[in-house]
Amino acid sequence: MKLRVKFLNVEKREYAVVINTDDAHELGLIPGDRVRIFRDDHTLTVSVEISESVVGRGEIGLYSNTLKKFGANEGDDVRITAVSKPRSVESIKRKINGEKLTEEEIYEIVRGIVNDDIREVELTAFVISSHIHGMDIEEIEWLTRAMIDTGERISFDKGTVVDKHSIGGVPGNKISLLIVPIIASTGLLIPKTSSRAITGAGGTADIMEVFAPVEFTAEELKEITLKAGGALVWGGATNIAPADDRIIEVEYPLSIDPRSQLLASVMAKKGSVGAEYVVIDIPVGEGSKVPDINEGRMMAREFVELGSRLGMNVECAITYGGGPIGRAIGPALEAREALYMLETGQGPRSLYEKATGVAGILLEITGKSRDGKKDAERILNSGKALKKFREIVTVQGGNPDVKSEDVVVGDKKYVVHAETEGYIVHLDNKRFVEIARAAGAPHDKGAGIYLHKKRGELVKAGDELFTIYAEKEWKLSNAIEKVEERFPLIIEGMVLERYPRYRYY
Amino acid sequence: MKLRVKFLNVEKREYAVVINTDDAHELGLIPGDRVRIFRDDHTLTVSVEISESVVGRGEIGLYSNTLKKFGANEGDDVRITAVSKPRSVESIKRKINGEKLTEEEIYEIVRGIVNDDIREVELTAFVISSHIHGMDIEEIEWLTRAMIDTGERISFDKGTVVDKHSIGGVPGNKISLLIVPIIASTGLLIPKTSSRAITGAGGTADIMEVFAPVEFTAEELKEITLKAGGALVWGGATNIAPADDRIIEVEYPLSIDPRSQLLASVMAKKGSVGAEYVVIDIPVGEGSKVPDINEGRMMAREFVELGSRLGMNVECAITYGGGPIGRAIGPALEAREALYMLETGQGPRSLYEKATGVAGILLEITGKSRDGKKDAERILNSGKALKKFREIVTVQGGNPDVKSEDVVVGDKKYVVHAETEGYIVHLDNKRFVEIARAAGAPHDKGAGIYLHKKRGELVKAGDELFTIYAEKEWKLSNAIEKVEERFPLIIEGMVLERYPRYRYY
Repeated sequence: MKLRVKFLNVEKREYAVVINTDDAHELGLIPGDRVRIFRDDHTLTVSVEISESVVGRGEIGLYSNTLKKFGANEGDDVRITAVSKPRSVESIKRKINGEKLTEEEIYEIVRGIVNDDIREVELTAFVISSHIHGMDIEEIEWLTRAMIDTGERISFDKGTVVDKHSIGGVPGNKISLLIVPIIASTGLLIPKTSSRAITGAGGTADIMEVFAPVEFTAEELKEITLKAGGALVWGGATNIAPADDRIIEVEYPLSIDPRSQLLASVMAKKGSVGAEYVVIDIPVGEGSKVPDINEGRMMAREFVELGSRLGMNVECAITYGGGPIGRAIGPALEAREALYMLETGQGPRSLYEKATGVAGILLEITGKSRDGKKDAERILNSGKALKKFREIVTVQGGNPDVKSEDVVVGDKKYVVHAETEGYIVHLDNKRFVEIARAAGAPHDKGAGIYLHKKRGELVKAGDELFTIYAEKEWKLSNAIEKVEERFPLIIEGMVLERYPRYRYY
Repeated sequence: MKLRVKFLNVEKREYAVVINTDDAHELGLIPGDRVRIFRDDHTLTVSVEISESVVGRGEIGLYSNTLKKFGANEGDDVRITAVSKPRSVESIKRKINGEKLTEEEIYEIVRGIVNDDIREVELTAFVISSHIHGMDIEEIEWLTRAMIDTGERISFDKGTVVDKHSIGGVPGNKISLLIVPIIASTGLLIPKTSSRAITGAGGTADIMEVFAPVEFTAEELKEITLKAGGALVWGGATNIAPADDRIIEVEYPLSIDPRSQLLASVMAKKGSVGAEYVVIDIPVGEGSKVPDINEGRMMAREFVELGSRLGMNVECAITYGGGPIGRAIGPALEAREALYMLETGQGPRSLYEKATGVAGILLEITGKSRDGKKDAERILNSGKALKKFREIVTVQGGNPDVKSEDVVVGDKKYVVHAETEGYIVHLDNKRFVEIARAAGAPHDKGAGIYLHKKRGELVKAGDELFTIYAEKEWKLSNAIEKVEERFPLIIEGMVLERYPRYRYY
């Protein structure tokens, strides 16, 4: 059938066209069917939407991304023919039925994800069925390799490439800002890509951005690493393992994170930058992604096994994730806390111990050190790590002379005080993240929370518990409302709820 | 945040708005998040899309259906606030984890489906996880009740209401056109809703439409039934159990049909019209929806159990579905075959035996007859069923004097001949449907296939096997191509494939 192109000024995630109800009946098409459109030498496979009013008979509506990809103009004539579902839909059905997929099938699915050949319904079906049935380690290996191969890769001619990753979900986990310079100052290469916060209060990329730009291509990531020995960039700007971004889009609305995708996504990023030695930080505890330590151990075993299949030397650190790391939550507050520790070796013990402990593992597995933690501490305390950090900041285009006291945090503040005396027995990760987000983090860099007291500390009535920082008054109000809605920490002996009515203030 | 409405002339299945990337960052929103929009007294919950170019900062794009539902105009100011996920998303996650849902949770999900509060990703997750984990009979009962309660219902002050349903997938299964008049002529009420073909060559509604309009509201369905004793209408035009339509939209791209949804959807339609006695036709055999008879028996038990929970007297007929019913496939051809049988009691035995057999069960379970099949045959052969059928056609607005010889079938024809001698050992349901669809069915009413020979018959080389009918030459060519691609029947002894190359012609 021949149709005339009409431009629809809307962006869509998928390549899609709109045709008129009558033309659709004529062609036997229903919404979601796939068609191939042709014009001269151009051809593109798209999915079909059907409308009575958006386009008339004989017209075909092309969304802006589809129009661009297909290279047509309004008014052009195109031909369309129905095409059958891609073979990967059959593979996805096999996964729904609990069968094991072949290497070829997994590659085809991942290619389909990257090329947008797989529709959202199909991708969701793949993610959900992988979540329910799981994947065995061989399938996860194939998935990882497919993710690596469908994205960009970098490699270094000489030097030893290492990397680290922290499983998310724990606020304040800014350890990469300490680990990367510690490691890089020993001569190891650490081209670290990080995420921005999706549901968190600040990802490593958001924090690093307080000091320097973080959006670079894979090639630029390599150059930065060659110059400074390390980098702290946003993975989303590179084209490394791009399948992951689309998978996250369907995981997020359901807040699920299938083990197979988590393992593959982390290791694909490490594989893509050519890491030979990798340490994975797995925080366990209430309110973290892995509440149970046994689950953490199982995950650790899988990371190690997957690493060995991919030729990477992986070691995992199971850490405490039942509360925030350090005292700062939110990009600028975390940036300041990390830089202060680089400057002085001082600051929250939870941050100091964790950062040097994880860095130490990397120093040991690469043979750089026999007592890695001690050496990591020495590098940190000697000021070498600070020097290296400033070097990285400089190469990434930031201010080489940045000091922690110069970091600007939000000027709108609200201090929350204790009402009762007692020990702090619980800090609620998720609640603190919600409050920090309500205050504007991660978009407003200066927004966040500073914890004056942490778990195990004794407080008296009237003591300062935490301060909320914001850049905008209305966001500060939103954050205070969140605190009143449900208090984010528990002081032993505190009245938790009161009927008929109780408000914190 | 206050935003100015911009109209986007595109229809979307879901209520959705587009906001600018910067505003989204400001509000901490990511694609797929839910927001509530407000203007004066109007408010609507929608999902968010994010774009750099479709709308500018301070603008909010509303798709046509969202604009209409919300009742705003281009240029209006609206406020938006983020809202959290509906509780039903948590329930869907519980289903993903294999847990049993409560009655309240299932009602909430179904309401969310009907109100478009549940997004496609979430709905897909619900369907896939129900498919993998299954639902127990109690959950299926709640699902059915929720589907009934979220749609329109009809009830009759007096009389006995009965209904039938055939599980789909078998071409040519036009038995409702015979059963409805047979049953209605005994004084039972049979307000039958049917589907149009989605992936088939002709649903009962498509076939009936050859004789009379089929699009009526629930109220009109009741009136027709009161006047004529029976009706043959399209369920999609009523608002009966509307959740089903949306569920089908995500099942179709994956061609899955979870048992729980199938049972609930069928029984919800029967429950909504107040049926007290129901017969379910379950065709089993190769190429049907239920290839294995044991699976058919299990399904039958579930239908009976579900019926008893809902207060309906259900009986199932397991029938042969390994090949087409009758000789005609496609709306007009099937309409002609059914009407001819009503006129003469003559025609394919497979159709005669099945229609009277299934009708007979209804006559027996309602106590109308002790030998239901015999009585059904008597009603059919006496011309009473024909008279009743014409009455129904008349009340639905069709031609009261319609004759089978007046039914117009496609004037483009192609006869396929046998190349070898032997018995026909296999007719491929799916292949025949594909050919009929390629020829234009169900959109082109006159398109379809007439089988001159069926399974078990002896053919000689040169005998006519089947005729393809089409209304358009190019569609006939498409259908012939399909035949050449893969032959839809097997004659014992026929060479099935030949290397290096073999074509049927």
